[in-house]
Amino acid sequence: MMEKVLVDLRPEVVLLGRACAKPVNGRNFGLRFLQQPCGHGEKGFLVKNSNSIAMTSSEGIDSVDPRMLLENTSSNANGLSSAARFWICSEEDCTLDACEDEYGGIVVNPEKLPWNINLFAYSLQASISSWKLKGKKGIWLKVPLGRSELVPIAVKAGFKYHHAEQAYVMLTYWIPEGPCLLPANASHQVGVGGFVINENNEVLVVQEKYCATTSVGAWKLPTGFIHESEEIYSGAVREVKEETGIDTEFVEVIAFRHAHHLAFGKSDLFFICMLRPLSNELKIDEHEIEAAKWMPLTEFLEQPVIQDDNMFKKIIDICIARLGKRYCGLAAHQVISKFDGRSSALYYNVVEPQDFNCQGV
Amino acid sequence: MMEKVLVDLRPEVVLLGRACAKPVNGRNFGLRFLQQPCGHGEKGFLVKNSNSIAMTSSEGIDSVDPRMLLENTSSNANGLSSAARFWICSEEDCTLDACEDEYGGIVVNPEKLPWNINLFAYSLQASISSWKLKGKKGIWLKVPLGRSELVPIAVKAGFKYHHAEQAYVMLTYWIPEGPCLLPANASHQVGVGGFVINENNEVLVVQEKYCATTSVGAWKLPTGFIHESEEIYSGAVREVKEETGIDTEFVEVIAFRHAHHLAFGKSDLFFICMLRPLSNELKIDEHEIEAAKWMPLTEFLEQPVIQDDNMFKKIIDICIARLGKRYCGLAAHQVISKFDGRSSALYYNVVEPQDFNCQGV
Repeated sequence: MMEKVLVDLRPEVVLLGRACAKPVNGRNFGLRFLQQPCGHGEKGFLVKNSNSIAMTSSEGIDSVDPRMLLENTSSNANGLSSAARFWICSEEDCTLDACEDEYGGIVVNPEKLPWNINLFAYSLQASISSWKLKGKKGIWLKVPLGRSELVPIAVKAGFKYHHAEQAYVMLTYWIPEGPCLLPANASHQVGVGGFVINENNEVLVVQEKYCATTSVGAWKLPTGFIHESEEIYSGAVREVKEETGIDTEFVEVIAFRHAHHLAFGKSDLFFICMLRPLSNELKIDEHEIEAAKWMPLTEFLEQPVIQDDNMFKKIIDICIARLGKRYCGLAAHQVISKFDGRSSALYYNVVEPQDFNCQGV
Repeated sequence: MMEKVLVDLRPEVVLLGRACAKPVNGRNFGLRFLQQPCGHGEKGFLVKNSNSIAMTSSEGIDSVDPRMLLENTSSNANGLSSAARFWICSEEDCTLDACEDEYGGIVVNPEKLPWNINLFAYSLQASISSWKLKGKKGIWLKVPLGRSELVPIAVKAGFKYHHAEQAYVMLTYWIPEGPCLLPANASHQVGVGGFVINENNEVLVVQEKYCATTSVGAWKLPTGFIHESEEIYSGAVREVKEETGIDTEFVEVIAFRHAHHLAFGKSDLFFICMLRPLSNELKIDEHEIEAAKWMPLTEFLEQPVIQDDNMFKKIIDICIARLGKRYCGLAAHQVISKFDGRSSALYYNVVEPQDFNCQGV
């Protein structure tokens, strides 16, 4: 006789509890064994159904071939239709496949989530209880897009959303009392703008197709968001190339702007980059750009959209100061850190002691 | 006779199609009208069920009181149990409540999602078809945590995940052919580190409780992630205060590091900030910090963890250059932009023409 086992029903009901060889409450279910391949590798035992009606096998439990499909032939099934079928599965199937991270957290394997939502619901509860007993803290549950039916089950079990990408949603469960100490989701978008000036003191500008009504017709620096895992110095060059057709070389970050409460309540870091032009011929991206041109710097500055806006004006003043070599931007340097073995970009001034003496501390 | 209407069944089946006053396929359903308050303000008409069996009212369709609960009394219901009950609702209820954004996109109102998942499924499909016909592009569907049962329905209808926060998941649907042009999710975490040095040329350092095995026992600058909507200059001061008890004043951003492929595949911007100390007495955050102290700068530099690591060494070199006033960091300035009416922080050097002449372009 088996304890705490599970019969996984496709597609309706999960039964769980103690297996029992005798009738309970005067009800007996005759079970007819049908040969059927299990497909998903289930193997297991019989259980009592959740309405406390015992189920017996005509052959006795010990002789059940775990790979069998059982058919309930009772016509008085309480809450069960007369054609209910049962898959059976083992206790191993009742624990979610997961591993531990270095912080005492549990990471559930998204590729081994139970195929049946009822089995998932049961396994989830059983696993949470088990992890609680083991003193675990955070549970990370990544649910692929194709298994989205598991999401409401996880939420019902107490999970909250952590973040999502196109192909999955990550949910988390914080076990201890007190505030959740799991690391937060990414919080910032990163944009770049290119300040490109040629030997005629003309700045490269664009008119956007889609912009705020106050900006219609205004000429601006080419800007855009960097792509996933893209470098700021690459993204700036790419955006300028895509929008205007001009090839450039990254020089340095001149300044950056930090703004909050933008799309999706997130924040935004915008890096204004000085780029050296390497070509001259314009070719715009017609999806996003209305027009592009080389505009005399003074004419660019005189536009109302610049003059009337503190932010734009300041940014351009800084760019001009940089041209006049009265300014130090931050150049990009690839540095490898032994700490994490990665090469990452460090942005700083190139220091030459004899060259300058900026504002003291 | 009504066309394209919906009977919303709680909790089982949604029927839709044409209302019909005559028997179809030889089946007739007798409907007994029961007085029942609708609660959710449904009003409406009869429909044909999805298995093409017509339903008629004993009183005729025109005389149906739309606020009635209808009970199907057929005993040969094909696929329906003998106790199926039907709520009825109007065609208005079949379209999701939504508004348009300035880019031709649709934003579904998360507070007016249909209460019944079957009604939601039907409304979603009907709405998508309608928006397609109207030439709309992107659909934004925000599903609160408490309505997570709607998530798999949206996914089945073709939605993908966009992002999630604790209390909701945002899904999107891109209608036109070609790449999705909806703006992406936030992609970066932002961290800050504080370089704090006192009049004795001692740098403020901490030993972390939880760190990589290679760093155990190492003394480092206080660091941490900034909070949602927090300024870099505030976050740096806060982190130093929380970890060490020392009050400081933000001076400037000395440098920043940009790294990729970190937690959740996201990127990370880490800003090294110069802070001026305003107090001296140490008091650590015992949850995260093992110890804190004022350490002679030379001793700090000589640690293997600094000497052996290009990244750490470079960062500290830059900090020292800044102390020697041979360096220009980026100071924070709050600037209001007329473009979006916001005050945001612009980080740049303070330019004094006579003071310096840094590396030319």
